[in-house]
Amino acid sequence: MRALTVLPGKADSLQVAEVPDPQPGPDQVLVQGLAVGVCGTDREIAAAEYGQAPPGQDRLVLGHESLGRVVSAPPGAGLAAGDLVVGVVRRPDPEPCGACARGEFDMCRNGRYTERGIKQLDGFASQYWTIEPQYTVRLDPRLGAVGMLLEPASVLAKAWEQIERIASRAWWDPQRVLVTGAGPIGLMAALFSVQRGLETHVLDQVEAGLKPRLVRELGAHYHTGGVEDVARSAMPDVVIEATGVPSVVFDALRYNAAAGIVCLTGVSASGRALTIDAGAINREIVLQNDVVFGSVNANLRHYQDAARALQHADAGWLERLVTRRVPLERALEAFEPGHPDDVKVVIEL
Amino acid sequence: MRALTVLPGKADSLQVAEVPDPQPGPDQVLVQGLAVGVCGTDREIAAAEYGQAPPGQDRLVLGHESLGRVVSAPPGAGLAAGDLVVGVVRRPDPEPCGACARGEFDMCRNGRYTERGIKQLDGFASQYWTIEPQYTVRLDPRLGAVGMLLEPASVLAKAWEQIERIASRAWWDPQRVLVTGAGPIGLMAALFSVQRGLETHVLDQVEAGLKPRLVRELGAHYHTGGVEDVARSAMPDVVIEATGVPSVVFDALRYNAAAGIVCLTGVSASGRALTIDAGAINREIVLQNDVVFGSVNANLRHYQDAARALQHADAGWLERLVTRRVPLERALEAFEPGHPDDVKVVIEL
Repeated sequence: MRALTVLPGKADSLQVAEVPDPQPGPDQVLVQGLAVGVCGTDREIAAAEYGQAPPGQDRLVLGHESLGRVVSAPPGAGLAAGDLVVGVVRRPDPEPCGACARGEFDMCRNGRYTERGIKQLDGFASQYWTIEPQYTVRLDPRLGAVGMLLEPASVLAKAWEQIERIASRAWWDPQRVLVTGAGPIGLMAALFSVQRGLETHVLDQVEAGLKPRLVRELGAHYHTGGVEDVARSAMPDVVIEATGVPSVVFDALRYNAAAGIVCLTGVSASGRALTIDAGAINREIVLQNDVVFGSVNANLRHYQDAARALQHADAGWLERLVTRRVPLERALEAFEPGHPDDVKVVIEL
Repeated sequence: MRALTVLPGKADSLQVAEVPDPQPGPDQVLVQGLAVGVCGTDREIAAAEYGQAPPGQDRLVLGHESLGRVVSAPPGAGLAAGDLVVGVVRRPDPEPCGACARGEFDMCRNGRYTERGIKQLDGFASQYWTIEPQYTVRLDPRLGAVGMLLEPASVLAKAWEQIERIASRAWWDPQRVLVTGAGPIGLMAALFSVQRGLETHVLDQVEAGLKPRLVRELGAHYHTGGVEDVARSAMPDVVIEATGVPSVVFDALRYNAAAGIVCLTGVSASGRALTIDAGAINREIVLQNDVVFGSVNANLRHYQDAARALQHADAGWLERLVTRRVPLERALEAFEPGHPDDVKVVIEL
């Protein structure tokens, strides 16, 4: 079969290659791959900045935003041939930390987790893949066209769960949310915010086109300009930072409501120096009882939460998030810088 | 009677002055002031950088780390003449925000709180003061010599409560704590950490003398040097930052264990530029699921928690925190830069 592969750490090694068909074990599900979404982590791996091949292999099959159809499943797995499914990305170490042992592998403490398509496990960008039933999430058939959005949605389901759990430390009655960045993560953050009935503001650089339209279709407010201006007028109780741009991140830390909660989801490269008014940021966080936290990955509970959220979203809106679909043979095009209106690019398998 | 007063916003206005004796209302407690502790906020007010006088007054009576003895109390207040008491500092606005309405005035959302000795209410640095019974905390008579430590202790009781509430968002089994700064707040943070059975590390600049001794007497580890070195070897699950020094604050954000919780308690001045590797800090917070939060002030529950914690502490250790006691007539000496071994300076009334 064919798969999108890379030699981790080696630039320009991304290619569509012939690889052996997977052989499902007796307790494994065999899945026909339908599509994978491409995200910043995939681009980092393709740029040789991240990623690890499975032990004993040079090559890593890419792809962690999966969508597939069950070919065969072991008895008792609760899965039938034809079911639409998504694979959970992270796996705990066989000798798990306390968090992993409780299924919270997204909060792994010792860093010895593995990740399909990222770290030591082949991903889902292949015509067939196998998976354990307990890491398989069944999707409503109506999500057939957009099921590969479940993985990024699970990241936001986790982020929102953590926002709400952290906020429960004190009285909490949020009114306004600011999302920085209108890429797939920012737009999904805004969707979840609107689903909670919150006044939602999204900030991005793009002046016009699809992103502002997608934001307004949600019933949210679209802004361009600086974080400070938007935050001073909207006074957000929650900020979800989804750009990873250092100046945006550190403005988000500073400008928010009292007892504000800032959730950082954007991963930035190291070595990006920034001069800040460190005293003012620290003073603001202390005197306002603010919280800043980082959120990455998701566990099974978050995939299930995200599946429910996507079912309640407008199907047309979700489909408009997918702005380009390229076939596997032309998968490398998905990694080329696209149109500024690109939101989510998908490889069809 | 005599009181330590200041004209907020006017430098060199700190003085011991004759002020009218307080006239307790029928629902108020009359207290003979015994002592007040002096902290960084008092120094900021004395330096005309902070503080507001009561409406219609030029002068503010200073002092918010109080200790007094009840002279008279209204019936049903649960207080008797001779009781040792401490006054709660913050008061909600008559039109409270949702947090203040629930007694969480330390988490005030609209900023319209008032504070005794700081913001629009006279403080406790006077020979007599009045207070409402519901803002009066009775102390064990054995804490007579150190009761003015209750207010700073309440700030740490709140900080630790918030650490534990925030941490309950996920599996949590903390082992190691790093406290930056061995002033009164840092030492109290370390005391509370040791009381929880945690391996406790304290970092300060002072090479020898009282601070290292006080840390070691707790059974904690004392360090000098940089945050990075100490944190890389201790890998703290919790960092309590008590210096307000921007470079220390931003190193604390970066160097801690996975899912680490950094509690900022040190207030720094604005306008202190710092060049940081903003990308690395953001990346670390996101990929490690770290939390950073600010903690200020305390509500009644925290004073009560702190009173219990002080009762369980070694009385001699608490007394050694008070390194200078000056009488009210010489109160200005308490604001002069003291010996490097100064921890808590107290004015006896």
